[in-house]
Amino acid sequence: MKVGVIGLGLIGGSMAIDLKRRGFADGIIGVENDRLNGEAALKIGLADSLASVEDCVAASDIIVLATPVNAAVDLLPQVLNLVVGTEKIVIDVCSVKEAMCQVAQGHKARKQYVATHPMAGTEYSGPWAAQPNLFDGRACIICDVEESSPKAVRKIEELYDALNMRVTYMRSDAHDMHVAYVSHISHVTSFALALTVLDKEKDEKHIFDLASGGFSSTVRLAKSSADMWVPILALNHDNVLRVIDTYIDKMKAFRDAIEDFDDDKIRSLIEESNKIKRIIR
Amino acid sequence: MKVGVIGLGLIGGSMAIDLKRRGFADGIIGVENDRLNGEAALKIGLADSLASVEDCVAASDIIVLATPVNAAVDLLPQVLNLVVGTEKIVIDVCSVKEAMCQVAQGHKARKQYVATHPMAGTEYSGPWAAQPNLFDGRACIICDVEESSPKAVRKIEELYDALNMRVTYMRSDAHDMHVAYVSHISHVTSFALALTVLDKEKDEKHIFDLASGGFSSTVRLAKSSADMWVPILALNHDNVLRVIDTYIDKMKAFRDAIEDFDDDKIRSLIEESNKIKRIIR
Repeated sequence: MKVGVIGLGLIGGSMAIDLKRRGFADGIIGVENDRLNGEAALKIGLADSLASVEDCVAASDIIVLATPVNAAVDLLPQVLNLVVGTEKIVIDVCSVKEAMCQVAQGHKARKQYVATHPMAGTEYSGPWAAQPNLFDGRACIICDVEESSPKAVRKIEELYDALNMRVTYMRSDAHDMHVAYVSHISHVTSFALALTVLDKEKDEKHIFDLASGGFSSTVRLAKSSADMWVPILALNHDNVLRVIDTYIDKMKAFRDAIEDFDDDKIRSLIEESNKIKRIIR
Repeated sequence: MKVGVIGLGLIGGSMAIDLKRRGFADGIIGVENDRLNGEAALKIGLADSLASVEDCVAASDIIVLATPVNAAVDLLPQVLNLVVGTEKIVIDVCSVKEAMCQVAQGHKARKQYVATHPMAGTEYSGPWAAQPNLFDGRACIICDVEESSPKAVRKIEELYDALNMRVTYMRSDAHDMHVAYVSHISHVTSFALALTVLDKEKDEKHIFDLASGGFSSTVRLAKSSADMWVPILALNHDNVLRVIDTYIDKMKAFRDAIEDFDDDKIRSLIEESNKIKRIIR
């Protein structure tokens, strides 16, 4: 089995590592439009060779789109055009799924496309961030599964099985709403927190000297790459906007309770939020 | 050396463990106004005995106030009254320092009080959360050091040396501003994030099924205890309010850029926030 990976960054590169060493793929053909990243991916050994999109698709049984979601939206129809009438399967791994499914809708090769979201990652990016075992034990969502051929879905389930992922199914619109709440908003809150403290650092050079472990953990995601996150926030526009608005309301509730010296209100807000203990280890 | 610890929770209990096993203290006299916590602290071995505040102070060379800051503000003058004319030293470990220093100001035993903030912790609380090595390698701030007797400060530096902490010095008002930015705001953003998603869970029972590692890390602090955090936010009122307002402005900047489909603006906000890489490992 040859696997083509378009985009050899954190996700594509990490998939390539485990698919190869666990025997699912006997060859990885990479596509990388950044010359430096391409050279690094070859040197690290993420791919056996680099190719153009056309040559990669021609040589692969499964093609993985692992670029930022805006590029994947553009690439998907091109790649589907190349696989019409073949047994080849195309998947993407983006964290916005409705835009992907929409662009594939009605395509002659739609049944050869499986929309997937392996829910794993770190705040780092690029081929240097790729690592083995990244996906082990995590969830992978397959969206709008009825639009894909059962045979293609079975093969992709085997692929995610090789990555030790739990596969679940969801409509693409429901997926996008869910990830807005439990992934996308966390990135925006971290970006905003970083901006807040970096602003203060302009006057107070040593503001970070006291930074606690708690601060590091809440701000960690602010290291995430703009190339990946601008298109996510842009393409999951309505869901992200709705969550941000709810979130700003909650921040204002804290703000007003503090301004009013209303300790009972602050207590009830904190105690309500403590219910997260039920969910997060 | 006998050390009295008033409040045998995460911080007081963890100090007791290491001060005893590293030989700084040969006895820990605990004070705990919660019966269950007191019994647990004895059973776990955080303290050798429990006593009233009066008996604890009478039997101790150093008295550590390790209660929530509102209780510490009340206790400090009482405890200082009990140590007048002795060699005993009183410290507190609260994360708001100006209110503590103000209440001690002008007291006959002011020089026997050292205002300290060992910057370590977890999101858990109570005697069960106490752990060895909690303070190793972390920073401890001593505030308004010129108000304490040099001899008392030296002894307390020895205490924090036994806990493997780096001691630094700061004015209490500067301390409170700094921690608002690099600790207190992180808790508020986590509380608000928890409330946002818990709200959604009322309609969407499975909203947390997709929760990512990034979500867990940004929301972790929302498990923090209301008993500790209500008085911190209330007593660091002006600083916390100022940071929250800046933070809400940053969130609104993201919100508006997303609403306006202004990808260039989203990108510049994210790239600016990425500068946090310079600071956070």
